[in-house]
Amino acid sequence: MPSPTLARTLASIRPVDLDRMAAVQARMDRQTKPRGSLGRLEEFARRFVAITGREDIRRKEIYTFAGDHGVAAEGVSAFPPEVTPQMVYNFLAGGAGVNALARHAGAEVRVVDMGVDHDFGELPGLIHRKIARGTANLRRGPAMTRDQAIEALEAGIALANAAADAGVDLLGTGDMGIANTTPSAAIAAVFSGLPPTQVTHRGTGIDDQSLLRKIAVIEEGIAINAPNPQNPLDVLAKVGGFEIGGIAGLVLGGAARSIPVVVDGFISTAGALIACEMHPQVREYIFAAHRSVEVGHAVMLERMAQQPILDLQMRLGEGTGAALAMSLIEAALRGLREIQTFDQAGVTQGRDQ
Amino acid sequence: MPSPTLARTLASIRPVDLDRMAAVQARMDRQTKPRGSLGRLEEFARRFVAITGREDIRRKEIYTFAGDHGVAAEGVSAFPPEVTPQMVYNFLAGGAGVNALARHAGAEVRVVDMGVDHDFGELPGLIHRKIARGTANLRRGPAMTRDQAIEALEAGIALANAAADAGVDLLGTGDMGIANTTPSAAIAAVFSGLPPTQVTHRGTGIDDQSLLRKIAVIEEGIAINAPNPQNPLDVLAKVGGFEIGGIAGLVLGGAARSIPVVVDGFISTAGALIACEMHPQVREYIFAAHRSVEVGHAVMLERMAQQPILDLQMRLGEGTGAALAMSLIEAALRGLREIQTFDQAGVTQGRDQ
Repeated sequence: MPSPTLARTLASIRPVDLDRMAAVQARMDRQTKPRGSLGRLEEFARRFVAITGREDIRRKEIYTFAGDHGVAAEGVSAFPPEVTPQMVYNFLAGGAGVNALARHAGAEVRVVDMGVDHDFGELPGLIHRKIARGTANLRRGPAMTRDQAIEALEAGIALANAAADAGVDLLGTGDMGIANTTPSAAIAAVFSGLPPTQVTHRGTGIDDQSLLRKIAVIEEGIAINAPNPQNPLDVLAKVGGFEIGGIAGLVLGGAARSIPVVVDGFISTAGALIACEMHPQVREYIFAAHRSVEVGHAVMLERMAQQPILDLQMRLGEGTGAALAMSLIEAALRGLREIQTFDQAGVTQGRDQ
Repeated sequence: MPSPTLARTLASIRPVDLDRMAAVQARMDRQTKPRGSLGRLEEFARRFVAITGREDIRRKEIYTFAGDHGVAAEGVSAFPPEVTPQMVYNFLAGGAGVNALARHAGAEVRVVDMGVDHDFGELPGLIHRKIARGTANLRRGPAMTRDQAIEALEAGIALANAAADAGVDLLGTGDMGIANTTPSAAIAAVFSGLPPTQVTHRGTGIDDQSLLRKIAVIEEGIAINAPNPQNPLDVLAKVGGFEIGGIAGLVLGGAARSIPVVVDGFISTAGALIACEMHPQVREYIFAAHRSVEVGHAVMLERMAQQPILDLQMRLGEGTGAALAMSLIEAALRGLREIQTFDQAGVTQGRDQ
């Protein structure tokens, strides 16, 4: 099945306007501070304005995509699979890490069931996009069909479009899915060409023995599926996850609608990487929230030419890092809007400035 | 002149309660997330609670200390000295970087004239603590007298005490003073024993020739004054600055009154280092806001055993980094207060957790 939605979305993605970026920087260079002295805040401000054409943020939304993984049966996680639906209830009740940090940042959390192995019924607040009750075990064969992978991408794209129509100016990604560092590490290995042992880590906190098992599972999963790194959809289908596909779709949809997307940690970066491999300009719309403790994270960030905003030794996912980074982007915009120029404030400019 | 205020302040500084810190961590370990997965946010929360006994922040204040420097006559800065008073007016009008970022963080900015070479008259909003109209040129002799150094420290201590009485739970430091990276680099060199060439950088943006001159000025200043690194008051007096003394005093006063102090960048860290050299427990009360671009910053942070919270290539000072870091400490406290436990949320705990 071809996907007109995906094709149309990819065709809508344009390079970010460099002239607009330069104009913002020129304005900041006249503000009462040594040139460039706000460092990366200046980068955040000029990129945000160049992407959106706006200097403030009306609404911020974090999409926490949830899905289960057949590969959990291999004992690759410290937590049992029932924790995925339990955490969905926790998100909806506002009691998880992402809820607390999103409230701090003034962002809304939207919870999406992409493929949790649980029947939630008509649960208020939950966005129902369930593709199946968990992926298949990637160690034994493809995690999902090609059509399911497309459905996951389309779900993320549709959410980005709805957000754009609702006046959301900044999107964030998040994830929940027991065992989902396993597909994420597999994705990192496939695109980088590195052996799984170099990109696989302890996830929620497994011991040495479980880590060795996890690496072996990823090696076998890649060997049996032979995902083609030239074909990101093939990689998503064979060794990905439903929530990872949703994240990739949200990133694509955000880029297509000129909304910057703050990409959370390891799992979100795996999703964003799939989006970046589909279109060379996608990475211009991404803000990498933080550097995760997961060793494979840096490999993916480097491939996407992203420098993470924060490095706080976090490894929770959910969108927690995205919430913190959103707040820093907002701070940068406040600097752009509110710092007076040398002329306005009657301050003498320095030499070589 | 001995200083009863300084002696009393130093005598009031106690080690931070480790039992209380462990109790907070134990609570976070029962929250619905893998143990330790919020990384340094958990450190911020447990340290803040252990220091203050509180789990929320009622008021946050950033003190931006301003002073002029006789050494500016040596051409060590890209900006002329009249910019110091001009920026004081800019701070009071709310138009500088620290104002914008403090508004973002919900912090108040308090501007202190420690020794600006300008007569402000009865300027509303300005805290008048002027010791002299600028320090003497440290290249030719001591920047200030011993009594002036004590007066600077006492001013900072008094402000911390007044803040504590007013219900401020988190203090931040900031600085303004053309040429003040020169005394700060001198302080870094004296305490570390490193040659000035290894701790001196471009400040607001000087060229290679000015940088060489700045290094030579610091070398001569240290040679002619021979500050004694065993005597922090001697170092402050001979190669310091009035605003640096105010910062050191605020840090001491905060520690004595059990208020954590968020230390901004290079100049603030020079002040905090003087405070730390006066009392071994002071460093337990400090949060290092960010890693400055200035090369001497890391040397001082290491000596104080501080790991900066942010690394955003900033080099503005004023308290801009402190404002951003305060917001992250507040996010950490929100996580502590609002994330539900496994029991509360009905989530299954993982193995080895």
